[in-house]
Order: sequence, then C-alpha cells, then structure tokens
Amino acid sequence: METKQFKEFAKEMVDYIGNYLDNIRDRPVLPNVKPGYLRELLPESAPEQPEKWQDVMADVERLIMPGVTHWHSPRFHAYFPTANSYPAIVADMLSGAIACIGFSWIASPACTELEVVMLDWLGKMLELPPEFLASSGGKGGGVIQGTASEATLVALLGAKARVLRKARQENPDVNENDIVSKLVGYASSQAHSSVERAGLLGGVKLRLLPTDANNRLRADALQDAIRSDRQQGLIPFYAVATLGTTSSCAFDPLEELGVVCNQEGVWLHVDAAYAGSAFICPEYRYLMAGIEHADSFNFNPHKWMLVNFDCSAMWLKDPNDVVSAFNVDPLYLKHDQQGSAPDYRHWQIPLGRRFRALKLWFVFRLYGIANLQAHIRRQIALAHEFEDHVKSDSRFEIYGEVTMGLVCFRLKGSNELNETLLRRINGHGVIHLVPSKIRDTYFLRLAICSRFTESHDIKLSWNEVRSLADEVLAEERPGN
Amino acid sequence: METKQFKEFAKEMVDYIGNYLDNIRDRPVLPNVKPGYLRELLPESAPEQPEKWQDVMADVERLIMPGVTHWHSPRFHAYFPTANSYPAIVADMLSGAIACIGFSWIASPACTELEVVMLDWLGKMLELPPEFLASSGGKGGGVIQGTASEATLVALLGAKARVLRKARQENPDVNENDIVSKLVGYASSQAHSSVERAGLLGGVKLRLLPTDANNRLRADALQDAIRSDRQQGLIPFYAVATLGTTSSCAFDPLEELGVVCNQEGVWLHVDAAYAGSAFICPEYRYLMAGIEHADSFNFNPHKWMLVNFDCSAMWLKDPNDVVSAFNVDPLYLKHDQQGSAPDYRHWQIPLGRRFRALKLWFVFRLYGIANLQAHIRRQIALAHEFEDHVKSDSRFEIYGEVTMGLVCFRLKGSNELNETLLRRINGHGVIHLVPSKIRDTYFLRLAICSRFTESHDIKLSWNEVRSLADEVLAEERPGN
Repeated sequence: METKQFKEFAKEMVDYIGNYLDNIRDRPVLPNVKPGYLRELLPESAPEQPEKWQDVMADVERLIMPGVTHWHSPRFHAYFPTANSYPAIVADMLSGAIACIGFSWIASPACTELEVVMLDWLGKMLELPPEFLASSGGKGGGVIQGTASEATLVALLGAKARVLRKARQENPDVNENDIVSKLVGYASSQAHSSVERAGLLGGVKLRLLPTDANNRLRADALQDAIRSDRQQGLIPFYAVATLGTTSSCAFDPLEELGVVCNQEGVWLHVDAAYAGSAFICPEYRYLMAGIEHADSFNFNPHKWMLVNFDCSAMWLKDPNDVVSAFNVDPLYLKHDQQGSAPDYRHWQIPLGRRFRALKLWFVFRLYGIANLQAHIRRQIALAHEFEDHVKSDSRFEIYGEVTMGLVCFRLKGSNELNETLLRRINGHGVIHLVPSKIRDTYFLRLAICSRFTESHDIKLSWNEVRSLADEVLAEERPGN
Repeated sequence: METKQFKEFAKEMVDYIGNYLDNIRDRPVLPNVKPGYLRELLPESAPEQPEKWQDVMADVERLIMPGVTHWHSPRFHAYFPTANSYPAIVADMLSGAIACIGFSWIASPACTELEVVMLDWLGKMLELPPEFLASSGGKGGGVIQGTASEATLVALLGAKARVLRKARQENPDVNENDIVSKLVGYASSQAHSSVERAGLLGGVKLRLLPTDANNRLRADALQDAIRSDRQQGLIPFYAVATLGTTSSCAFDPLEELGVVCNQEGVWLHVDAAYAGSAFICPEYRYLMAGIEHADSFNFNPHKWMLVNFDCSAMWLKDPNDVVSAFNVDPLYLKHDQQGSAPDYRHWQIPLGRRFRALKLWFVFRLYGIANLQAHIRRQIALAHEFEDHVKSDSRFEIYGEVTMGLVCFRLKGSNELNETLLRRINGHGVIHLVPSKIRDTYFLRLAICSRFTESHDIKLSWNEVRSLADEVLAEERPGN
C-alpha cells in the first residue's frame, strides 16, 4: 500500500470512526450471533493477491460489526468502563507510525522520557505522596503497565525479590526454595480475580481474607491472618488492598491496613484499577487516605480516564526490587546511558513496549484537568440518578453504597428471581449488565461506562429494567 | 473534543504520518539528546484547561521527534525489525474506536472469532501441522500474545501445570512445593534473555546449555543435561528451542531436539520470534523441520510480517494445561456460551486484551500472501547484498552464516578494535547497529529492519561502516 492510498484509506476510516461513535446509541449493544458465526463468513485461508481497501472497509460493517459488543454504547453497563476518546485514538495513530519498541532509553529516548514525566503529571493530579514521583529526585517513579493484572503480578514479584534479598543478606547459604514455599500473600475475598491469579503465576500462597459487612478488608482480619501464619512458620510478605472492588466498588481502609503492613514488613500494593481515576477530584481523595503506607499503587487510566487501552499506571516507592527481580541484561540491549534514565524493560513482564505515554500526553492536554474531573463527576452523578430510580421503586433494593459510577441493585426476593431478571434483560438486548454475588446475595451491577451517557440514557436503562421486572414478577405470581 | 474536531485532527495526523514515513530517510536515525532532555521542555504539570490540537501537533515535531530513534529508517539496523505498515495502522485505528476488551467470547464475539480464524490462516501460511489449528477440529489452536516473552512464560506455566496435574493424578497427597523445587527447564545459551527471565518469573530452574560451533543446541547436549538432572532427582519438564537466535540468527535443530523432548515427556516450546515470518516462504521451511514434535510454537508477526506491535502469534497443541493454570472464573466474567468458543483470558497473563486480530486481517488482505513473501525475500536479498560488501573487503569477516535478514560481521582483529568501530558508527549517527558477543568473540549485527530499505541504502550503510573502519584502523597504526 502506497502513501497516497493510505491517506485515502485512513481518512475514510477517520470518517467511519466518527460516524460509528456519533451513532453508537442506535446499534444493539449486544450482538445476536452464535459461536462460530464468523468462520462461516470468511474464506478458509488468506488471499494470495492483495484486495482493495474499499472491500475491507465494506467487510468491517458487513462481517465484524454484527459480532461486536458495543462497549461505548450508553446502553452498555457491564463490567467497568473501558476508555475511548478521540485524543487517545489520534495519539495511538502516531504511536503506530513511530512504532518504536521502548525497552531501553536509547531505543527511543522520547518514549521513556515522556512516560517518566507523564506519570509525574498524573501522580500530581492524584496528589500521590512525593516518594512515588520521579520528580521528587528520590528512588520512586511511575511506569505504564499493560493491565492491572500485570501490575499486581509485578508488585508480587518485587515483594518476593525483596524477601529473598533480605534472607540472602542474613544468610548467604539460605535455601531459596524453602523461603518461597513459606511465602504467603493476602488480599480480601473481594479482590479482583487477577490477584488470586498473580499468586498462581508467582507460585506463592495467596490468602483471600473475609471482609466486614461493607465488603472491606479490615486491619484485624489481616493482623489475625499474619499472626496465625507466623505461628505456623510461614512468611507473610505481600498484601493487596483494593480501592473500588469489581463486585461492589468497596474500598479497603488503607489507613488501617497500611499500619499493619508497615509494622509487619509486608509489601502493600494498592489496586485502584477502576476507582483510581476519581482521585483526580479532591472530594474523593478521602478514599485513598493512608496511601503513604503503600509500596506500590496502580490504577487504569484506560478504564475511566479517557485513555484507550492499554494504559495501566503504576508507581513504586522503590523500583529496585522489581528491577532486580527481572534483570537479565544481554549485550545487545546495553547502552552507554544506563543508570541515568529508567530502562523500562526491567519494570515489566514483557520485553517490548509501545509508545503509550503519547496517549496520556494528548488526553491531558486536549481535555485539561478540569474536563477530566468533569467527566468523573458527571458519570458519578448519572450513577446517582439511576440509584434514585431504583430507590423510587419499592420492589427493588440497592446493594451496598453508590460511591462511584457503579450501582449494585436487586429485586427484593430470591437470587433465582434476580437471575431470571438478568437473563431477561440481556436476552432482550436493549441494555447489557453483568451480575455479581457476595456471601450468597446475588445482585445486578449497572456501571456507567460510555462517555456519551446522558440522563435520558439512564432513564431508558431504568425503564428497561423496570418493565422487564414487571414481566418477571408477573410470571412469578401464583396462577401464572 | 467533538467529532468534527476529531476528523480534522485525525486527518492532519494521517497526512503527518504519511509524510513522516515518506521522508524518514532524511532524519538522523539516532537522536542527539541527553537523558532528561524532555523534562526541561515540558511544563511541571498537566494543564488545567484544554489546549488546541494544533499546538499538540506542533509539539510532536518540536519536542518528541528530536528524541525519537527512527526504527523505520532504512539506516536503522539494530536489534531485529519491528513491523510498521499502513494496513496495520488503519486496523489499529478501528480497534481503538471499537475499544472492546476481548477477555471472553461474549465481551465481543467478533474479537475472539476473528482471532481464531486469523491464527488458522496464519498457521496455514506457515504449513503448521494441523494439530495446532482450531480448524482441524481437535484441541489445538492459536492466540495472539503481546510479546514472545509472554508466550515463553505462558508455555512454561502450561508445562508446570501439566507436571503438577500428572503428579496429583499419581498421588493426590503429593507435596506440590516439593515438585516445583525439582522442576528444571532447558534452553540454549543463545536463547533470548526472556527465556531466562521466564524461569525467574515462573520460579523454576532453567539451564542454559552449551551450543555447537554453529551456535545450535544439539540433542546430545540436551539429552546429557536431562540424564544428569534425573540422576540428581530433578524433574526435567520444559525446553525452549530457538529458531533464529537474537545474537546470530542460529537455528536449533528441531528434528533432533523434538525426539528427545517427546521421549522424555518434556514440553517443547519453539521460539521463532524473528525468523518465523520467513516460514511463509516454502524455501525456508526446512528450518522448522521437526515442528510436529513441539507442544507450542510462537513467532512475532509484529517483527517481520508487517503487523504493528503488539501481535505475537502462539499456537498450542493442547491449550488445556495453560487454561487450567490461570483459570479463576468470577461470576461477573461468566457467560452462557462458555465452552463453545475460547475465552482468551485463560490463555494469557493479563486479563484485558485489545482487538488485535483486525491487524492480521487487514495486513493479510491488503498485502496478500504473495506480497508478504516478496517482503521477506527482498529483505533477505538485501542482507546478502550487505554480506557481499563485507566479503569484498579483506579487512572484514562474516561471523556465522547469513540465512535471514541479519548479517553478523567484524573487523579481523581484537574485540576492542570492533568495540571502537561500533562506538564510532553509532556516534557518527548516520546508521545504528548493536553488537553481540558469543564465546568471547565480539561482533557487529546489521539487521535489515525498515520496509523502505533499498539497495542504495545498503550501499550507504556499507560505505559508512567501511569509511569509519578506515579511520579506526588508521588510528590503530603505530605512529599515530
């Protein structure tokens, strides 16, 4: 493909994208296809000769769109939001054109340096303690990971390396396998599934501890578990506190947990994947009080801060244990400036990395902090609008508390009734929700996801829930 | 940013990208900046109010480009190529607009289904054995990983899960920590640094075995290591064969190694990160003979097959051990169609994933197999042109053999002399190379990277090497 054709093709795609997003509300949010739908529509193998871009473009609408779940429809309320914004899309275009692999400073200095500064900008927007920022001149600093799952794993591996380093310092002949077999990490039973997975991947025990009635991990539960494990000869080394759980958006009290972790020499990782974006608004920072106790902090601008996936921001007070955990340093990756700037390959699981800091730079500059704050506040206000609708109908109840953009709710009554309602809602295809279940209580989760969501969308979503509840309840009635 | 502004901004970026790539040859390949250059040029924090996109656009050229290493310049010969093509850039734009997170089938059926079919298309282009393909109707299938490092780690974790599963079947009360502490994996001393890193991450021993004079891991070396480890009570479980090593593009003989692995019940993972793309040309498939013995196979279309990073293709004959190694399955990720299509989150380290199959689809259709083959063949021919230049100058020698797009060479003489030459070359800034060292022999690596490379670029690169060698050798002479 020549440059001239590219310009035509890409500009056609720009128009397609603008029109797709302008009219996304009109598409059914969930596709009506069965597994295997696409194979039947595609040739069995790649073409020998090039096709026309116009044909590919036509097939996007003909073959792909019928199988797309439209995450940016205002009627998509499943999971948590994933970001999508025009500035981020344009930044990614530039990233694709430069297409450098920023594994070391020399591999593209701008790629590393913009990331260092953008993570400082972002840390300041959240009022992170200065020890986390590179601009403070200390050891700390930030990095863009692909996902929160990777951040949780990287922190766990850093914590593991720290324990092993200390054990070697005390006894150079220590049996490392013996140490590893005794390591134990902690999170709440409400932590994201990727925390449990990080334990599996890292080959260490990871206990999921019970929470209080508000689904928060409390200091006493953590302290009891640590004490009991030490009595059994185990080595507590890592704890994950969640700010904004996936099931119900509960916030673990960092102030309490942080004191325990610091006293016990346990690495505290804070997973604020979804809710972290809200901390750019001062009025929500009370939810991260105690952050100064943490060793590492992570949230996903690619969820709720209008930076397209993937962009998971992680800060470390002392990256040295992470860096040394992964450090293999072949000659072909060495360079003369090593040590005077981060070589980010040592901070992450993969070797390669794209120029993702461009997305942060474009989004910060083209929205400005004020508009990013407005986005968060507007989405939280919409969640409260939905909450009010639910509360206005005595057949329903709110589960937990609406703090951010997530509303957990249920029909008063059995889990089965609510399962029936959810199946009916998703089957009807106008809106899309996923459920959750905590301590035998099944409920529906409605997340405000799309940046296009307006009051009338919330009204429509509520009307959909209410009218399908009418149906379900009518069918439940004796005599039917 | 409104849609109207986006269309203007994005189209301006399209023109910028076309012009950047059309004229990339005129930019210095390596930037002339010092660590910290960018911080001085940027504000200390993000702006409160939005800026104009025209200002951001201007700053790309003013602030970013001076710090970019131009990986797509025909004068960039470092590392291995990373892909950049117009069809892939446009596909990524669409991926950014749809911005679905394809962790399960229901999260966007098209995202999963296009990936399944594209990995079949690609597997057929390479003539992979049918057991690796989903279209064969067996257990096998392909997946897009972010990087080869992740594929190596995923395979290692799958192998570990397989051993543990078998041990539990034989003895339900087996001590898993005891098993893990005895596990040992193998690769050649020439394997990529990420293989060693996978061992560190996975918490298992990983031996780097000596190679033959042609830098290949031979069956006897592997067999000896396995035998010796078994005698010591260890459990050999995993081996990585490399097709196209990073240092010198050596190919481990799969036919030999595969027989040993199959006999010993050791999981064989094949890392063809760079060279795998060449197997779309039938004349290079002799280098993958024995692939039928492998359990998993991986190569990076994002290196040499014109699909922008990240797109690392991995096939597994039996994904079940990988899937069960990672499987944590919360209610909010369950769906009704589970089991009838892959839920790719179980096949990878992160939970989230972009719609990357679009890049494969666009590239396959808009190049066609014939042009992708022509790209590989042209780049290998250019490597041979450079080889001929080197051979025409008796002061130089070729290190190893030129099989693909990599030429390893050195001045006859000391390592120090060659280190001086490399420093001179990179310092002069016209071309960019990185070195390697095998068994105390230091050499320079010249990789054909840019898809824009032509004969006259190779000639220029050679003239640069030759004239700087003139200088270095003149300074070496007694009397200077």
